[in-house]
Amino acid sequence: MKLFLIGANGQIGNQVLEQIKANEKHSIKAMVRKQEQLEKYQDSGVDAVLADLEGSVADLAKAMEGSDAVIFTAGSGGNTGDDKTLLIDLDGAVKAMEAAEQSGVNRFVMVSAMQAHNRENWHKDLRTYYVAKHYADRMLQNSKLTYTIVRPGLLLNEPGTGKVSIAENLGQGSIPREDVAKLVIKALDNEKTYYRSFDLISGEQSIEQAIESL
Amino acid sequence: MKLFLIGANGQIGNQVLEQIKANEKHSIKAMVRKQEQLEKYQDSGVDAVLADLEGSVADLAKAMEGSDAVIFTAGSGGNTGDDKTLLIDLDGAVKAMEAAEQSGVNRFVMVSAMQAHNRENWHKDLRTYYVAKHYADRMLQNSKLTYTIVRPGLLLNEPGTGKVSIAENLGQGSIPREDVAKLVIKALDNEKTYYRSFDLISGEQSIEQAIESL
Repeated sequence: MKLFLIGANGQIGNQVLEQIKANEKHSIKAMVRKQEQLEKYQDSGVDAVLADLEGSVADLAKAMEGSDAVIFTAGSGGNTGDDKTLLIDLDGAVKAMEAAEQSGVNRFVMVSAMQAHNRENWHKDLRTYYVAKHYADRMLQNSKLTYTIVRPGLLLNEPGTGKVSIAENLGQGSIPREDVAKLVIKALDNEKTYYRSFDLISGEQSIEQAIESL
Repeated sequence: MKLFLIGANGQIGNQVLEQIKANEKHSIKAMVRKQEQLEKYQDSGVDAVLADLEGSVADLAKAMEGSDAVIFTAGSGGNTGDDKTLLIDLDGAVKAMEAAEQSGVNRFVMVSAMQAHNRENWHKDLRTYYVAKHYADRMLQNSKLTYTIVRPGLLLNEPGTGKVSIAENLGQGSIPREDVAKLVIKALDNEKTYYRSFDLISGEQSIEQAIESL
């Protein structure tokens, strides 16, 4: 598949990019916001394109034309204000969905946040972030796209174990970013994950087994 | 109709309340957040109930049980932060929709903001407000409710003229809050407004004519 990665500069996005380099099934194009990022990727042999989640849907659609799937791992990050959370994590995400629909990219894998679908489980200090993720996810579920919504628990920078637990609702837990990226890539062309949303933490099953059990 | 008013303490909400007092077709219940507000309304003979848009959907559903229509005029206001905009104008609004669905209140009239549906026309300084209104409106359009979305232009405190212009898209314009409230009330049981969203500014037509021309 020809993948279109939004959020390549983020930590999960970077993991996806690194893993795809070693994967013969897929090719990837990274969307970046700045000319210097574009050059950095191109210099290292990574296909990249300039576009901005704060820009127009038309520009985003043009950037992703010809792709088979969008992987959305972007986030405004913890150091920006609530305005950026709204504009990137919610409106930016939905613009990416609209762009995918417009440009005929039918597959969309969203990296969300654990329990984003259950208001009662939102961390009190992160409510604006959860509101943004919650509605981005619901807009994706209401879209025409073949979606998968992956909701990882606390993200770790440890090496991945390849062992996970996935389900509609899981208790608190954590997972290495490397394993989130692994699952996202395995999910891409696995029909078991189509139109599904699930929490994801480290667990006992291999990623393949976990997906089969969905 | 038995109306359930969310945002009674706001300026448009207060206009709706005052106008309904003189309207024999409808009765109204005002949702308020504080005990002192409850007492103020009850002392003046207005039916009121305590509930909070930051509370649970179940509590909101209980508060609106037995009503025929929800009028949503609430807003976090210009003096609160972007977090409240998200939690009230977006998540609070959608919780009210879910509560209406749960409690069998089928009719929902939303007061939105002019051009909230067109990103390119959002005021740059008010983008977070427009993102919140935009997605609240889209969630309502995706709901099972018989909705009407009224998107007024610049709101004035002048007396109403009763003359308006409504259309899917209008250029810039203003309108007295009194006329917004009048239109909302006339729209309630007028099928021409069902499943419709429109901009609203002062104009040349009576409210009845404008609604008929939809």
